[in-house]
Amino acid sequence: MKDILPTITTGPLPASRKIHLPGEIHDLSVPMREIAISGETPLVVYDSSGPYTCSNAPIDIATGLGDVRGGWLQARGEIEAYDGRPVAAADNGFASGAHLTPAFPQRRRPLRAVGDRAVTQLAYARAGIITPEMEFVAIRENEARRAAPPRDGEAFGAELPDLVTPEFVRAEIAAGRAIIPANINHRELEPMIIGRNFKVKINANIGNSAVTSSMEEEVEKMVWAIRWGADTVMDLSTGRNIHNIRDWIIRNAPVPIGTVPLYQALEKVGGVAEDLTWEIFRDTLIEQAEQGVDYFTIHAGVRLHMIPMTAKRVTGIVSRGGSIMAKWCLHHHRESFLYEHFEEICEICRRYDVSFSLGDGLRPGSIADANDEAQFAELRTLGELTRIAWARDCQVMIEGPGHVPLHKIKANMDEQLKHCHEAPFYTLGPLTTDIAPGYDHITSAIGAAMIGWFGTAMLCYVTPKEHLGLPDRDDVKTGVITYKLAAHAADLAKGHPGAQRRDDALSRARFDFRWEDQFNLGLDPDTARAMHDETMPKEAHKLAHFCSMCGPKFCSMRISHDIRAEAEKQQGMETMAAKFREGGALYVPAEGAGQ
Amino acid sequence: MKDILPTITTGPLPASRKIHLPGEIHDLSVPMREIAISGETPLVVYDSSGPYTCSNAPIDIATGLGDVRGGWLQARGEIEAYDGRPVAAADNGFASGAHLTPAFPQRRRPLRAVGDRAVTQLAYARAGIITPEMEFVAIRENEARRAAPPRDGEAFGAELPDLVTPEFVRAEIAAGRAIIPANINHRELEPMIIGRNFKVKINANIGNSAVTSSMEEEVEKMVWAIRWGADTVMDLSTGRNIHNIRDWIIRNAPVPIGTVPLYQALEKVGGVAEDLTWEIFRDTLIEQAEQGVDYFTIHAGVRLHMIPMTAKRVTGIVSRGGSIMAKWCLHHHRESFLYEHFEEICEICRRYDVSFSLGDGLRPGSIADANDEAQFAELRTLGELTRIAWARDCQVMIEGPGHVPLHKIKANMDEQLKHCHEAPFYTLGPLTTDIAPGYDHITSAIGAAMIGWFGTAMLCYVTPKEHLGLPDRDDVKTGVITYKLAAHAADLAKGHPGAQRRDDALSRARFDFRWEDQFNLGLDPDTARAMHDETMPKEAHKLAHFCSMCGPKFCSMRISHDIRAEAEKQQGMETMAAKFREGGALYVPAEGAGQ
Repeated sequence: MKDILPTITTGPLPASRKIHLPGEIHDLSVPMREIAISGETPLVVYDSSGPYTCSNAPIDIATGLGDVRGGWLQARGEIEAYDGRPVAAADNGFASGAHLTPAFPQRRRPLRAVGDRAVTQLAYARAGIITPEMEFVAIRENEARRAAPPRDGEAFGAELPDLVTPEFVRAEIAAGRAIIPANINHRELEPMIIGRNFKVKINANIGNSAVTSSMEEEVEKMVWAIRWGADTVMDLSTGRNIHNIRDWIIRNAPVPIGTVPLYQALEKVGGVAEDLTWEIFRDTLIEQAEQGVDYFTIHAGVRLHMIPMTAKRVTGIVSRGGSIMAKWCLHHHRESFLYEHFEEICEICRRYDVSFSLGDGLRPGSIADANDEAQFAELRTLGELTRIAWARDCQVMIEGPGHVPLHKIKANMDEQLKHCHEAPFYTLGPLTTDIAPGYDHITSAIGAAMIGWFGTAMLCYVTPKEHLGLPDRDDVKTGVITYKLAAHAADLAKGHPGAQRRDDALSRARFDFRWEDQFNLGLDPDTARAMHDETMPKEAHKLAHFCSMCGPKFCSMRISHDIRAEAEKQQGMETMAAKFREGGALYVPAEGAGQ
Repeated sequence: MKDILPTITTGPLPASRKIHLPGEIHDLSVPMREIAISGETPLVVYDSSGPYTCSNAPIDIATGLGDVRGGWLQARGEIEAYDGRPVAAADNGFASGAHLTPAFPQRRRPLRAVGDRAVTQLAYARAGIITPEMEFVAIRENEARRAAPPRDGEAFGAELPDLVTPEFVRAEIAAGRAIIPANINHRELEPMIIGRNFKVKINANIGNSAVTSSMEEEVEKMVWAIRWGADTVMDLSTGRNIHNIRDWIIRNAPVPIGTVPLYQALEKVGGVAEDLTWEIFRDTLIEQAEQGVDYFTIHAGVRLHMIPMTAKRVTGIVSRGGSIMAKWCLHHHRESFLYEHFEEICEICRRYDVSFSLGDGLRPGSIADANDEAQFAELRTLGELTRIAWARDCQVMIEGPGHVPLHKIKANMDEQLKHCHEAPFYTLGPLTTDIAPGYDHITSAIGAAMIGWFGTAMLCYVTPKEHLGLPDRDDVKTGVITYKLAAHAADLAKGHPGAQRRDDALSRARFDFRWEDQFNLGLDPDTARAMHDETMPKEAHKLAHFCSMCGPKFCSMRISHDIRAEAEKQQGMETMAAKFREGGALYVPAEGAGQ
């Protein structure tokens, strides 16, 4: 496996080092990224990149990441190791010989709850227990802050605390307003939380398709996505080798991994939707739960009577899972097995603590179809299913659209809060116009920032290749950075107490012409530096008090410094302010002149 | 000059041809772009690209574009040709010999109003006259529509008519709510309108800097920017050859050209702000007015008593013009010559119909400084100046920020409407976070889409190089497309009666797997096609009923078609809807289960 290693991107980001904060209740080591700033206290920021950005972590994807949670799980009890379901040839699409991706070398016996216990974070939260996962995310969310600056924002009902405490995390989970997706079989996980009273998170999708893509590529895509800030990763692989590739991804993933189990189930029946059965689907759920998948997208909200509601749509059903289930329902003339067996699905999820991501199978695929009858009918069903899952101690979030023009975005959040009882909302974009293929990371970042501001807890990224093809490495990075900035814009607007620290640090660096700090504090130091160096490549230019945009004579920031120096020389800006205030009204406003 | 030609990009966009619509009141030929769609009526869209996208227009930048407005101006009378101000060596920064950009070969005597007449669109509008410019923009805005679909949007007080009539244009201009920037010396202009009851427009900045850039490059940047949809172009050149380069740009520009005359004035005094005088500035205004500049950014709102208000800012003064004037004011201990001589500036502008773009010299340069005392104090002064300009029949728009977090954007629009009496707002972004250098086209597109929705009439683009360096050709294109999609998202949200036609046409193409139509209807067909072809390059793939994102088995759109076929076969979706409606409530919602 040695020849695989060079393809995995490792090492710290510029001027950054990994630090670890301890727990107070539990024995924890919570990773953070510390960015050095010249002449200022280093800035500690949230860090989802895992051990890959340590300066000296031994990374070997054939070994996988270290065991973070094993001890915690052991201490909690209520779980048992068992042999697990044998891997079937169908799990990998009957790939064989050279076509078969090798199994992950280390095989661990899977864990499950003893008897009918619920080993979910929700069950513990309701029982008043603060798990290590809960304390871990509390520390993480605070980004080493000890205080909060004065509030400034409009939170639309979200209640962001000055500092997140473990008890606050527990209470939010108990209320169903937040989830920690953390399958007990994903011991490599560095826990994170999704809820509207926490930092807005982003998800990156990876996965091979009919067009082949290797296991190494997918692991690297995951590592690459979290390097730039993805908080969770969904493996949307279809095609062959799906089981083995997933194993490689999870064993190397410090972030929650989500899947759409229906995709693999469909592969098992040769791509014929009508041939899907509950038994095959159920078996796939167990297969993936044993591997450690942290959340399942389940399209149980697509009901038979809703399908005709899509008849007059411009773009029909655009969710893969939604369309597959709709086809099944129509062919068999019955409600989907996902809906009919939803309680049984809950029984599986509670034994492994797989969180639900209730899929929006009828989301709009065009501006024209936004907020229509089909979409909101499904949303109400997702609200019903949320109650059912909660009754079984399962953690739930709700997926949302899609394509929605600006003026219809808020209604999505309002309806979701109303019908889904404040379960976290997890949206794809939404795209705010359909006319820019090739730029849909941007059409959707506009909608994402807004819906994040309104209360959406996690934003699923969209890459420039949306609607056109499979994203490559550059597209993944562009999508992640774009969504990080959208999520951050939302945090700022909500009045997140820690969000503006980074903006201010970067702005101070900008005003002081500390170019290196400006690059390093940005979301993508490499790109910022490369762009600067295109026109001013020399090292000496990194100290220049101007850039090529305006040149030295026209640099407003340089002149601003001159102004301050001049003012101080004269008598201090403050006294001048009083002196000049409203001095000399040269013009008397000509009221009504323009009418 | 023959060797220059190959660098200018010409020819139609894919599947597009130029059509021309006639006037009813005046003899006009209004250019539009018609996009062919297979099996559908062609879509006619707004087209700011000028003759460069005709299939066979003879383009020779040494001749310049044809005379569009000469006859109109002649017919109106009230104007006279005169010798004009002689070009001085200082106008080109004393460049000489091989360093001197050659003068534009054709020299025309400039026009000005006779006596103290106002030859502005505002003066005519107030007099009840519908000019050819007004009818031209009315036709343009309608995009060949003859009807409007039912309304859907939230316009925040904007009143978008179903169809724009010439009289509506006249009334909006008379009220000061819209402007047609159209210097009588810019006869090559295809008129356009800026106002919140019209389509949201975008501006692209070009211009050389201390780092050299040739005349050919700047002309091509302008042509390139309008090819992708820039509605106006600002020439922000500094350095040498500024006069001659501007001449080349204007003579070849079908869109309004804006400038910041202060930049050239500063060059004339060797870059020493304190040495600026009213006389040098005044002379520069006349120089540029004679060349045909359509709008001037004038930073007359920066008053002496406001400068100390910036003392505690994180990023001081970030407007180039604002910082130059602040330095001048502070040095001389007096109000700026722009403020003191504002009435005289109006006297110049009314003789040529140069519109004002009242500069926001104190706009915030960071999230931390947004909506502060200095910014809003200046805005109120801009409102005063608006009245003064209107009293002299000058057209006015107001520049706005800058860096503003999402929750503070609306206040900018509200304050502007309140204090500037509904004069059109023209904003830079705003950027909604400071932490993404290299991606500020996106941080700002989020703010731009929102403020456009709230009522901003024109959005000044930001390129990926913002804060880092001078944009190149690719950056200009990225900036323009990004802002086109933001402006369009705003139009959709305002409920512009024609906006959704293009989204719907593209979505229908998408649903029908008409790949070529999907590319061609997008803002950037070349990029969309290239992205698609990366994974599915063959011509046959352009007919494929799937793409590489999902592959054939998982294509939701393909399955949607199957679903419709199946439903029709069974008995029609409509009857099924009734049959299945709310059939079988399997689950009774467990009220309160999650609390």
